[in-house]
Amino acid sequence: MAMKVALLGCGVVGSEVVRLVDEQAEELAARVGTPVEIGGIAVRRLDRDRGVDPALLTTDATGLVTRPDIDVVVEVIGGIEPARTLMLTALKAGKSVVTANKALLAEDGQTLHAAAREAGVDLYYEASVAGAIPLLRPLRDSLAGDRVNRVLGIVNGTTNYVLDRMDSAGSGFTEALEEAQTLGYAEADPTADVEGFDAAAKAAILARLAFHTQQVTAADVHREGITGVSAADIASARAMGCVVKLLAICQRSEDGESVGVRVHPVMLPVDHPLASVKEAYNAVFVEAESAGRLMFYGAGAGGTPTASAVLGDMVAVARNRLADTHVGEGGHDTGLPVHDMGETVTSYHVALDVAERPGVLATVAQTFAEHGVSIKNVRQEGSGDDAQLVLVSHQAPDAALRSTVERLQEDDVVREVASVMRVENFE
Amino acid sequence: MAMKVALLGCGVVGSEVVRLVDEQAEELAARVGTPVEIGGIAVRRLDRDRGVDPALLTTDATGLVTRPDIDVVVEVIGGIEPARTLMLTALKAGKSVVTANKALLAEDGQTLHAAAREAGVDLYYEASVAGAIPLLRPLRDSLAGDRVNRVLGIVNGTTNYVLDRMDSAGSGFTEALEEAQTLGYAEADPTADVEGFDAAAKAAILARLAFHTQQVTAADVHREGITGVSAADIASARAMGCVVKLLAICQRSEDGESVGVRVHPVMLPVDHPLASVKEAYNAVFVEAESAGRLMFYGAGAGGTPTASAVLGDMVAVARNRLADTHVGEGGHDTGLPVHDMGETVTSYHVALDVAERPGVLATVAQTFAEHGVSIKNVRQEGSGDDAQLVLVSHQAPDAALRSTVERLQEDDVVREVASVMRVENFE
Repeated sequence: MAMKVALLGCGVVGSEVVRLVDEQAEELAARVGTPVEIGGIAVRRLDRDRGVDPALLTTDATGLVTRPDIDVVVEVIGGIEPARTLMLTALKAGKSVVTANKALLAEDGQTLHAAAREAGVDLYYEASVAGAIPLLRPLRDSLAGDRVNRVLGIVNGTTNYVLDRMDSAGSGFTEALEEAQTLGYAEADPTADVEGFDAAAKAAILARLAFHTQQVTAADVHREGITGVSAADIASARAMGCVVKLLAICQRSEDGESVGVRVHPVMLPVDHPLASVKEAYNAVFVEAESAGRLMFYGAGAGGTPTASAVLGDMVAVARNRLADTHVGEGGHDTGLPVHDMGETVTSYHVALDVAERPGVLATVAQTFAEHGVSIKNVRQEGSGDDAQLVLVSHQAPDAALRSTVERLQEDDVVREVASVMRVENFE
Repeated sequence: MAMKVALLGCGVVGSEVVRLVDEQAEELAARVGTPVEIGGIAVRRLDRDRGVDPALLTTDATGLVTRPDIDVVVEVIGGIEPARTLMLTALKAGKSVVTANKALLAEDGQTLHAAAREAGVDLYYEASVAGAIPLLRPLRDSLAGDRVNRVLGIVNGTTNYVLDRMDSAGSGFTEALEEAQTLGYAEADPTADVEGFDAAAKAAILARLAFHTQQVTAADVHREGITGVSAADIASARAMGCVVKLLAICQRSEDGESVGVRVHPVMLPVDHPLASVKEAYNAVFVEAESAGRLMFYGAGAGGTPTASAVLGDMVAVARNRLADTHVGEGGHDTGLPVHDMGETVTSYHVALDVAERPGVLATVAQTFAEHGVSIKNVRQEGSGDDAQLVLVSHQAPDAALRSTVERLQEDDVVREVASVMRVENFE
């Protein structure tokens, strides 16, 4: 008896899924143990040519996901609604679900996992983070006997491409972004990428899996994008032996009682394995107590890579159905809370436009000292009206660093805080 | 009811497994769904202190693996016998088996998989290749809906450390190896590592999983070690923008009808992601049709990382037992044969000590031409009695390249073939 798959959505990823299921029919059948067939495809409009058998198309998505002959539902519509309602309906009807929907998982993963648990079916979502890179399954399964302390990810290809171009070609932000748009790496409205929303959703999913804490949502993630990154920041990073990367950072606190989840640009030493991730590639660096330092690298987006991840999940849930089993998740909840960004220990790189006159450094240094932040190094660039003080702090709680910068903005000797960026070596 | 584990062997990895099962008891229980307990440990001698509860120790390994209360057998003895007989006995007795034994899997994996299939139990072996790096499970599961075309691995930490030191510190082979031995990266008898036996076993396992072809064994792997790599080779590689790495290479032939599996030193361009894998780290680069280029990076050896991989497998098979299921493998066999090294397409870097006189290059070039091998570039180094011709060929079947070199050895104008190494950019 064939395993029947209902597909929700037939865009870039969906049509690739159809193509691969067709092309690899024989291999899929061998690996699952029974043939895999597309039983129907829910779309919004029937009048567009999608290169798939028109007889499979329907606009009745609810009817499709509850059809008795359907075993597995693959959701590639994206967005919150109607995806959520359809997936919950499918799970309640006893169908296993495969999804690539990071936004929904980040916002309401808990509800979906609970529904899957209650129905005794699978909910797989490898494609939701870092495209084709097998990452969620290793975190969930292979490291199940280990304790993850930190996850660092380059999980947004658009912003990595833009930052890489700013570094390698000396482009400005706007120019690099336009280039990314021309190449199809960035959308016409790049907000979700450049403001870090996409990375924040993935950070929430990673934190949940890595620390087995179910209630982390995108809203818990401290988020800063890359629109403020200037050519001067890139040059300053390079002068310190660093590159600028937009990182998703999920970290257990020192006392192990809470986790921090954040997305922001970081000046990262060039010898960190993540520093050499170029162009639109993604990579996720995992630090586990026993396994040590691991990195997963690959294409983070694109129809075909994402479809590959969807197919991997499809094979797994189909096998599980044949064996009449499912892999539960979320039953084990450490309940670790997310701490405030202010409590996160980091260090700042601060560039200050100052008046060049005696006593300026003393005043600035005094402000740092008053907030309990010590200075690691300081250099002056330019002179006269163009004088700039560039300071790198030692590690301190983000709240103390932030207050220091706020106070500096009011200092008479500081004409402008030209740039603030975190510097981390993750040692 | 607790899940009972029998441990075979209590050396570096085994004692770490005991420690982790003890330390992480609570988390393991939560993730498996029931407590996990060590039910017994088979050792050769009882009179050594291993820091474990002596009541658990026994010298009757066969008795232990057939004990009715044992659910899972973890084998960390290594080597072929008695490991094979014990694992087969355990599988036949209906126990699931977790092993780190690359040598045995490479030699006789087919028999073990068949026994697991017949008994309807699991055989997991993540720790056998690349230590803690979650690699086999992603290859088996996450890429189950994809088609792997090539796997390139730095799967032996010792040789990577030695080559890295030769490159970064300018050490000679012997000096670098002694340093590796001092640091514990190389054993007193380094043969298995430096001659490529260890990497060849892992290559066989990787090829089997990547191409779903069950009968590949270590004996099918073309193997060359790094004992012949000289400081001059390293310098020559660097002059071409390359580094020397010992790679395990598993590749589908162009017609897709066979696979090549080989281990040898390669001059690899510095911008290949594997080129920046330093010290004793391991990394495996996978090229799949849909997923594109993926890389997995981490610690490839050591008691704790290996124990982490064993625990990950232990959690998986314990969960499967609770759910009364198992993940079959090897039922789907593409049966792809392994082709001879002579058919493998590669290119050679050849350094020839020659007499410096007119016509030498013409004679050498003629020899290449007669074997159907074209020359990509050639340069002369030194002069007079120290003259050396360094040639890089275009791609050609290895057999043609090998014959060319054999013929050169007989050429009057060639005093000595100083070095031969493959150069590949894997594009």
